Amino acid sequence: MTPSSPFAPDVEQRVRASFARQELINTLNGEIALVSPGELHISAPFDKRFTQQDGFLHAGIVTTLLDSASRRDPACGTGCGYASYTLIPANSRVLSVESKVNLLNPAQGERFRAEGRVVKSGKTISVCEGRLFALQKGQETLVAMMQATMICIREVQHN
Amino acid sequence: MTPSSPFAPDVEQRVRASFARQELINTLNGEIALVSPGELHISAPFDKRFTQQDGFLHAGIVTTLLDSASRRDPACGTGCGYASYTLIPANSRVLSVESKVNLLNPAQGERFRAEGRVVKSGKTISVCEGRLFALQKGQETLVAMMQATMICIREVQHN
Amino acid sequence: MTPSSPFAPDVEQRVRASFARQELINTLNGEIALVSPGELHISAPFDKRFTQQDGFLHAGIVTTLLDSASRRDPACGTGCGYASYTLIPANSRVLSVESKVNLLNPAQGERFRAEGRVVKSGKTISVCEGRLFALQKGQETLVAMMQATMICIREVQHN
Amino acid sequence: MTPSSPFAPDVEQRVRASFARQELINTLNGEIALVSPGELHISAPFDKRFTQQDGFLHAGIVTTLLDSASRRDPACGTGCGYASYTLIPANSRVLSVESKVNLLNPAQGERFRAEGRVVKSGKTISVCEGRLFALQKGQETLVAMMQATMICIREVQHN
Repeated sequence: MTPSSPFAPDVEQRVRASFARQELINTLNGEIALVSPGELHISAPFDKRFTQQDGFLHAGIVTTLLDSASRRDPACGTGCGYASYTLIPANSRVLSVESKVNLLNPAQGERFRAEGRVVKSGKTISVCEGRLFALQKGQETLVAMMQATMICIREVQHN
Repeated sequence: MTPSSPFAPDVEQRVRASFARQELINTLNGEIALVSPGELHISAPFDKRFTQQDGFLHAGIVTTLLDSASRRDPACGTGCGYASYTLIPANSRVLSVESKVNLLNPAQGERFRAEGRVVKSGKTISVCEGRLFALQKGQETLVAMMQATMICIREVQHN
Repeated sequence: MTPSSPFAPDVEQRVRASFARQELINTLNGEIALVSPGELHISAPFDKRFTQQDGFLHAGIVTTLLDSASRRDPACGTGCGYASYTLIPANSRVLSVESKVNLLNPAQGERFRAEGRVVKSGKTISVCEGRLFALQKGQETLVAMMQATMICIREVQHN
Repeated sequence: MTPSSPFAPDVEQRVRASFARQELINTLNGEIALVSPGELHISAPFDKRFTQQDGFLHAGIVTTLLDSASRRDPACGTGCGYASYTLIPANSRVLSVESKVNLLNPAQGERFRAEGRVVKSGKTISVCEGRLFALQKGQETLVAMMQATMICIREVQHN
């Protein structure tokens, strides 16, 4: 657990476990750069396989990174209300309802960092904002911004 | 050229050439299913490498298919005004300004088809709508819908 | 009840009663033009009080009409599942989670018609699309399009 | 000119003049609370005429305030590039391409403040974010957030 994680160790563990099951993030060689209550950062290298016709990272991959950074976050119990985390059955799931992405600059760089932050954390609905930065020659450029809605599905346990 | 393409052969050729340069679409094994003025369909198989934690196609890949179906379309000269297509310098480019995707059903299936349609085709800005369908055991399900904005950049030629 | 309403009279009644409580729609002199399962049309006249700096209807009023056309619809029991309408407690409410509007043409005309349609009707979340048309000298122009998310809140009754 | 306006007096003047021509903002009794490069705040009182069925400010009016806060901003020369402001013909116009609003809390309060900020200011396209706060009994609540795209139309002057 990094110093930036002031919550219980099992929350970070749970985020990392869920993250590991995301084949696409593995395929993109993405990794968690930061886990903290209400915030998650994902980092991934440039990969020619995921580019559009101009050689930049495809808008869909930009969305993938932003969506994952936002979605994983609620999963750690903050998006669905960090305070009530212990009340959430362990098999609850967080799904994207919708996301809206504005593309601000070409997604070119050696590496990318997606930042997801929970703005409003409700019982059912959470709203997140995301920012994607490209890192090139030591410089960062804001590539895209997202505003997204997540839903927390509390699965009924049949004992 | 398919019977569904009532416009000049070089338009479809140009769409296919631009499509072929999209590494991500190649990586996804995507192919053009339909090209017609103002409409483009893309088809792609399920691929475990591009799934999220529940084994469904990742929202980012859903967005990739929808965005590509919408973006390629304007590139064929319809989104930026099909009537004025011959006036557009051959090196004009169509870029995504923003897109908004609602996820309606889990993206599970053997194959997916993204449909992009131009709703408003302006000189600079075009607005498209997209629908993604999952095909499973001969049945189609609407998986996601998109509303997106594209910009046509007319590059100045220095002769 | 108009011939376009194939469902029980109390559904249309309920829509109209809820509509009547919307002060803003009254202020805009809006009226219901069509109620049918999964679809609602609202009509409103041009009003100088609600214009932006160029004399066109303000984007916020365009959104108001589209949002109302979409929101009222689920309220009639279709958005939250028409089939399960009788199961919904009478005091359930439909709220907008988010909406995204593209402005396609200037909102100028003598009258406006907003059409809202439910694309996906889920137990909790419904997704709607809307189209706003301006009517001028017998001609219709598509002014704006919306993609929106609604949530159905089932209020607990304490008897 | 307020101390928060570090740019030329005619910029603020121009914003206020354009603002004054917005009938809807006048109808809402809206006023400019802050003008600074890349940022504009609008304040408006609660008004029963603009409510929805629960007595809260209607989502369309929430959008109106956010849209106006964002749109006026580029108009002051920052959205279309503050540095290049003197190069912009005085009759250029800023129009909304699209906006997406998430509704986070009921719009109830004595007064509302909409904050618009330019995140990316391009030659043609600008992207803004907005936040709407409700003020009630000395407390502020975040009611809604917006992510919007504006276009700067440089009108050709025929001399």
